[in-house]
Amino acid sequence: MRTSDHTHCRIACLPGNEPLTRALAESLGCEVVELEHRRFPDGESYVRLHGDLSDTSLALVATLDRPDDKIPALLFAADLARDIGVRRIGLVAPYLSYMRQDQRFKPGEALTSKTFARWLSVHFDWLATVDPHLHRYASLDEIYSLDSEVVQAAPALTDWISNQVADPVVIGPDAESEQWVKAVAEPENLPWRVITKTRHGDRDVTMHLPDLSGLETHTPVLVDDIISSGGTVAEATRLLVSAGFKAPVVVAVHGLFGDRSRELLRHAGVSRVVCTNSVNAPESDIGLSTLLAPAIARMTGLSDH
Amino acid sequence: MRTSDHTHCRIACLPGNEPLTRALAESLGCEVVELEHRRFPDGESYVRLHGDLSDTSLALVATLDRPDDKIPALLFAADLARDIGVRRIGLVAPYLSYMRQDQRFKPGEALTSKTFARWLSVHFDWLATVDPHLHRYASLDEIYSLDSEVVQAAPALTDWISNQVADPVVIGPDAESEQWVKAVAEPENLPWRVITKTRHGDRDVTMHLPDLSGLETHTPVLVDDIISSGGTVAEATRLLVSAGFKAPVVVAVHGLFGDRSRELLRHAGVSRVVCTNSVNAPESDIGLSTLLAPAIARMTGLSDH
Repeated sequence: MRTSDHTHCRIACLPGNEPLTRALAESLGCEVVELEHRRFPDGESYVRLHGDLSDTSLALVATLDRPDDKIPALLFAADLARDIGVRRIGLVAPYLSYMRQDQRFKPGEALTSKTFARWLSVHFDWLATVDPHLHRYASLDEIYSLDSEVVQAAPALTDWISNQVADPVVIGPDAESEQWVKAVAEPENLPWRVITKTRHGDRDVTMHLPDLSGLETHTPVLVDDIISSGGTVAEATRLLVSAGFKAPVVVAVHGLFGDRSRELLRHAGVSRVVCTNSVNAPESDIGLSTLLAPAIARMTGLSDH
Repeated sequence: MRTSDHTHCRIACLPGNEPLTRALAESLGCEVVELEHRRFPDGESYVRLHGDLSDTSLALVATLDRPDDKIPALLFAADLARDIGVRRIGLVAPYLSYMRQDQRFKPGEALTSKTFARWLSVHFDWLATVDPHLHRYASLDEIYSLDSEVVQAAPALTDWISNQVADPVVIGPDAESEQWVKAVAEPENLPWRVITKTRHGDRDVTMHLPDLSGLETHTPVLVDDIISSGGTVAEATRLLVSAGFKAPVVVAVHGLFGDRSRELLRHAGVSRVVCTNSVNAPESDIGLSTLLAPAIARMTGLSDH
């Protein structure tokens, strides 16, 4: 669906998302408008959208790592946009938070994934994100009631590995990562394997290396969707190093890097950690704007596809 | 309206509100239930309500200074409570945030007071708070669509001043503070005055002391609703000190204490700063539980009045 000629596309961002926003604006031919966000002395948010936005289509770029302190400003901005006449409001969240509490594991636990999905669905018309952590939900539509576009980062990871690592063997640190590993390795016919786990009790898990015969001289590239505590990837690294492999490279979509995760990875023997720029981190060397721009174009009505 | 006998009252709080919550539970004869709130390594909130709460009336205590980081957990808890069968959910927010942006001073500014009021109104059935900063709104009902109870802290401030300050003269630092000053001074027939301002330009304001003849040996007690940057009270202090008065005592309802506000007050020559425990601060010496409990009793249906 192409929108009428008089609907103009605008793009704005929460502080911290400027580089990606400028890159997206250039790809899309959208004008960047200023979303001013500052704090009053008492810690409350002040939010202002600059310029005449009535009858426009607005994309707000806000990645949602360490989300709680960002959520009020984000929802204030969306409500403000509606209030001043924006016709269609979208959220570009390269990292989408609150996907992990997707089941009540113990009685009385909050299903934050559902509640958060409802907040975003009330405030936005559409959402574009990169590889959301879909585990028990088959798609975002199970909990989100807005138009959504899911972008897969795999092509960008494949490019990076092919260009930067000589003789890679792509390895998933657990069964859950198989989907990413396969999508990253197969387009360039890179060899890939997945580490398996045996569970002996609630907290007692043993990792087992897959058969890597013939790949002993290759560089192990551990691929996962999220680095948070870093525990799983660190354990996989120790296993590979103690089996005589080269120091692994870690490639992840979303680098959240919880406290002490970098130290943990370094001590385990990782040679390098690289992530996409879905989250702003020193490791965010893999750009996503080329993959995100077409999805945003579809959502804002700039493209027919 | 008295609720039926099988509706039980429970009280819970966000971390940091435990002392007031215990005091309220004792006054009300309510059982305290645990609201567990912690952070995952990636900064997301984990929220859990302990115990069987189906068919109960639940009061959540959460003061809302420096609110942004607290808002997601608060709304997650409310949504969770509804989800697990709580019949009536209330918020006890001794300090209610986002009352100050009550007008669009410049084009494109977010009316955060309205948006925030809608969030609370969607998630809670009732709200009890202390002296909300009503400036352009006549009452909470202009923006809130839930049952609300506004508690006035003045009686507690009057008690404190009468007991702790010899020969006080209660002084408001600006015209806006007259309502608090009058309510605090009149019940004990304390002398009171209000400082006036002459505005010469956008940022050029002169303060004028009122007629204080006959009160030269009294101790000035500056009374205001909120201490945030501390600027107004500091300026009033300098004026009083340079006119030869004793070092003023500052008594406020809500002590938000923005960066450098304490230093500013000390340098201006304040002898002591005291606030209610609506916000947790070293200065929070004036307890509110006795004033808040009856309001909560009315809202939970524990009282007929």
